[in-house]
Amino acid sequence: MTAKRNSGWLKVVGLGPGSEALITPEASAALADATDVVGYLPYVERVTPRPGLVRHGSDNREEIRRAEAALEMTAQGRRVVVVSSGDPGVFAMAAALFEALEALEAGEPEWRALDIQVLPGISAMLAASARLGAPLGHDFCCINLSDNLKPWALIERRLRLAAEADFAMAFYNPRSKARPEGFELALEVLREACGPERLIMFARAVSTPEEALSVTTLGQAQPEMADMRTLVMVGSSQTRLISRSVEGGKEGGESESTPWVYTPRSALGAESGAES
Amino acid sequence: MTAKRNSGWLKVVGLGPGSEALITPEASAALADATDVVGYLPYVERVTPRPGLVRHGSDNREEIRRAEAALEMTAQGRRVVVVSSGDPGVFAMAAALFEALEALEAGEPEWRALDIQVLPGISAMLAASARLGAPLGHDFCCINLSDNLKPWALIERRLRLAAEADFAMAFYNPRSKARPEGFELALEVLREACGPERLIMFARAVSTPEEALSVTTLGQAQPEMADMRTLVMVGSSQTRLISRSVEGGKEGGESESTPWVYTPRSALGAESGAES
Repeated sequence: MTAKRNSGWLKVVGLGPGSEALITPEASAALADATDVVGYLPYVERVTPRPGLVRHGSDNREEIRRAEAALEMTAQGRRVVVVSSGDPGVFAMAAALFEALEALEAGEPEWRALDIQVLPGISAMLAASARLGAPLGHDFCCINLSDNLKPWALIERRLRLAAEADFAMAFYNPRSKARPEGFELALEVLREACGPERLIMFARAVSTPEEALSVTTLGQAQPEMADMRTLVMVGSSQTRLISRSVEGGKEGGESESTPWVYTPRSALGAESGAES
Repeated sequence: MTAKRNSGWLKVVGLGPGSEALITPEASAALADATDVVGYLPYVERVTPRPGLVRHGSDNREEIRRAEAALEMTAQGRRVVVVSSGDPGVFAMAAALFEALEALEAGEPEWRALDIQVLPGISAMLAASARLGAPLGHDFCCINLSDNLKPWALIERRLRLAAEADFAMAFYNPRSKARPEGFELALEVLREACGPERLIMFARAVSTPEEALSVTTLGQAQPEMADMRTLVMVGSSQTRLISRSVEGGKEGGESESTPWVYTPRSALGAESGAES
């Protein structure tokens, strides 16, 4: 395969967390112009079929082969969209695409000449945060809890340092079917580092019909509250709750709503820890 | 002011980084239904005027008064959109809104009954990351470098811990006109903690006509490379470059493009640091 400059292009596109109302016009335009859509099957199936569009769904953990196939189609002059859920740059296909590109262009620099763009999307983290209020309203970190591609010791180390930095935290891929014990270990580390009263939030399948939200404390949290479709967030020491229920409201009988959760903008009262 | 349940609503909306093509359909629909748009003047001016829509632009650092005004209009039955640039939950109006709400409902719990939603937007961080490739493709943190609302000692502590955790890092508000020395100090801390070869990226006004990108190393970085419209990112130890220029390409005379920057998905080769 020779990758000469041609009229083909490749766009790595984020489809957002699920709702069509969260897909950017830029992403929709790319899909409307594409000849081929490539991605993990459930994401490819989110793209409406139309004449002239070939949908190439593949299995999970096929990221590099999928990226190579997309680059090869682009080199043939096709207009290729690689789809991710959420944002393609957050634990998704953009990094895999550049890994594949780097391997190809090491042998043949002409691969660099391909017309490649990454189009951002609403990440699960931003969608979950919006639904709950503003839990990431101050400094935060974002960690992939899967130990497929990194050692557990590195995950644990990052959890402890993030707690020491008093970041709010967002966790992707908290609990796989293959290794459900990882999230239990993560909860133990966080309880020890942040204390049992620290707020933890579970946001599953935000903006889809299966959306489910819950807010509790690390002391009350159970590993079963998360699965692979759940974005988990842990507050900083400053993160606060506002009840959404009005007791004795005139309508009466109002059910308990998930409270608002937010992290204030100011940390002037926070311990700076400069002397520790 | 009594905040009885009524037909008014308040939506805190992210307008994305600048381009209309990055505003979600959900945000556009909220703006189309609103009676009032409230926000920092340059963001309010991004909303096209139309009959029946009142635009309330206010000065920077007026966040709490602006949030109170929006809540009061909602209590009067108006349909109010509070606009932020980027995502409203990342160093923007959502946290300010909940701070104002919590203060009001402490006196009068009925304020809880207002119909409030936060609608996510494409954050500057995600837009900048997409333009450069996938620098946030692995675990990362996001820090507001402004010391208006937190002590400098806390910022420095978080920078050192983020470096120790080997996070990629995204920085908001790197360099204010009032305190330009803060970013110089941050660069010094990062050089010491990450070494002079670590990659640093400057992404200014992404998706606008004033967009400017540059990639260099901490050793080469100058404080003047950033202003308040710049999103700064620092790679992890694993972050890599791919040149976008093809030497001797058939077109000839191609100017040097900003390279792709990405952080691989795998950290299996990274030092776990478990024993340190």
